[in-house]
Amino acid sequence: MRAVYFDNGTIAIRDVAKPRLKPGYALLKTRLAGICNTDLELLAGYYNFSGIPGHEFVADVVECDERRWIGKRVVGEINLACGACQYCAQGLGRHCPKRSVLGIVKHPGAFADYFTLPVENLLPVPNEMLDEYAVFTEPVAAACEILEQVPLGAQEEVAVLGDGKLGLLIAQVLTLSGCRVTAFGRNRTKLDVLKPLGIKTMLVKREAARYPTAAFGYVVEASGSAEGLNTALRMVRPRGTVVLKSTVHNRAPFDSAQAIVNEITLVGSRCGRFAPAMKWIRSGELNLGAMIDAWVPLEHADIGLGLAREPGILKVLLST
Amino acid sequence: MRAVYFDNGTIAIRDVAKPRLKPGYALLKTRLAGICNTDLELLAGYYNFSGIPGHEFVADVVECDERRWIGKRVVGEINLACGACQYCAQGLGRHCPKRSVLGIVKHPGAFADYFTLPVENLLPVPNEMLDEYAVFTEPVAAACEILEQVPLGAQEEVAVLGDGKLGLLIAQVLTLSGCRVTAFGRNRTKLDVLKPLGIKTMLVKREAARYPTAAFGYVVEASGSAEGLNTALRMVRPRGTVVLKSTVHNRAPFDSAQAIVNEITLVGSRCGRFAPAMKWIRSGELNLGAMIDAWVPLEHADIGLGLAREPGILKVLLST
Repeated sequence: MRAVYFDNGTIAIRDVAKPRLKPGYALLKTRLAGICNTDLELLAGYYNFSGIPGHEFVADVVECDERRWIGKRVVGEINLACGACQYCAQGLGRHCPKRSVLGIVKHPGAFADYFTLPVENLLPVPNEMLDEYAVFTEPVAAACEILEQVPLGAQEEVAVLGDGKLGLLIAQVLTLSGCRVTAFGRNRTKLDVLKPLGIKTMLVKREAARYPTAAFGYVVEASGSAEGLNTALRMVRPRGTVVLKSTVHNRAPFDSAQAIVNEITLVGSRCGRFAPAMKWIRSGELNLGAMIDAWVPLEHADIGLGLAREPGILKVLLST
Repeated sequence: MRAVYFDNGTIAIRDVAKPRLKPGYALLKTRLAGICNTDLELLAGYYNFSGIPGHEFVADVVECDERRWIGKRVVGEINLACGACQYCAQGLGRHCPKRSVLGIVKHPGAFADYFTLPVENLLPVPNEMLDEYAVFTEPVAAACEILEQVPLGAQEEVAVLGDGKLGLLIAQVLTLSGCRVTAFGRNRTKLDVLKPLGIKTMLVKREAARYPTAAFGYVVEASGSAEGLNTALRMVRPRGTVVLKSTVHNRAPFDSAQAIVNEITLVGSRCGRFAPAMKWIRSGELNLGAMIDAWVPLEHADIGLGLAREPGILKVLLST
């Protein structure tokens, strides 16, 4: 089968053996996969990754011990948990210390014709849902995770920093949940994705003066920049909450004195559950179509990854 | 009257005019004042402070419009709030953006024969309570603040990093509240303060290996060092909470990726309410006596401040 292969900062299409099916797993045939910033970071050498990337997908189940899954169109949670530890016992397999992660940690990913996942990770895609919307389930779940961690009341004033893919999804999910969101970004075209939902946007060039000070009870930091955290700390009210969504790979300088004096709460936030995300997508209220900038065939994944790196480009999809 | 005066990193005893009494304020005669690390930082030039420091005190009310206060022995909250803003309306005068702070921000402090505070800041000291215990109300309140911010269940496993004055008070208050505390420090004599309360202590020299990894649901960072935050992030379990108590004045490098991947919550924590702190002191269960290392007369405050800077020294008190 064809597989995208990252090795030491290089990318190649390799012809590799189909993965072997273990008990409790399903063999999946990729229909569509999404390129995430994490994939760009893996290619750039973070996590010392080498192997097959890809963790946003829609696929068909082609082999499985549990025959009722065969032929189903599915999406799937990306953390493969041990099932035995205290985190798994609490339904927090996403934090299992022994977990592997599809296309990221010790489990070959979805940028290939075939890959595997445990059956318990799978979620069927409703018949009427388009592949290109279903493929957003993983990033929408990451946006929804905030709602499970932070007690956001209706009408809560929330700032979202960053007009990347995740920031735009967060702004949408929080708005549809009843928050009054202001989205801050540097790219007018990207911010315009939020227009149909009536979300207030602010275009911010490098002038820090444009960010309001101590103005929001909640600030979601999804800017992807190391300085974003300190901007968020300035924007949040005393006793307010900053949600951290940017996994910045350089240690960010952090003004802890400000967080302490103003008694700010910071909440690290990562992956979320798929079922609520699927419901949001099914509602049709998210503006996902406007976030897709390119479809590229899997064998030209290098072109797709190059495109995804361009400023102004949001989601790039790989099709098999 | 005599007053300790900090100016540009120098310390002097000056003869200054008694402060004038404004309506709603009390004129206080200092009985005993405590030296806090913040005072050492003010002297070292942080906050561009010049003036009379001192915010931990026991004093007698000598003048006041409300005559019932005259002659009362009191302690007092250190934030002078505007009383009109949204924070004041919510009882959060400690976060009033227009506040001044006794001996720290725009209000002369208690390292003097006399100083003033609004009557609403005062709390009478019970007759049976010794001055040298009452003077701990402010730092005990800072320790108690954690209990108001974080939902600590009984039997919760909590690590406290730091065997300074604040760390030792936090370890005691959390233990007496039912938590199972392990206190980490670098000084055996300081850690021994916790012995009478049966608190588990761990002496940690610089080897990071001695800190257990992902072992605590809660970690309180009161080490006073910039690296403490990242140590705390390593010690806390996924989805756990780190309480930030060290106002480190250099921006600390912060591994936000770790906080995000493990979905850690960080809670900045500063001053607390005095009434609960007074109750803890009154209970007699805190080992405060062992934390007092020196009494020095006010006119030798320079010697007191020098002592307070020595390793192994905990509380130094200034007496009038």
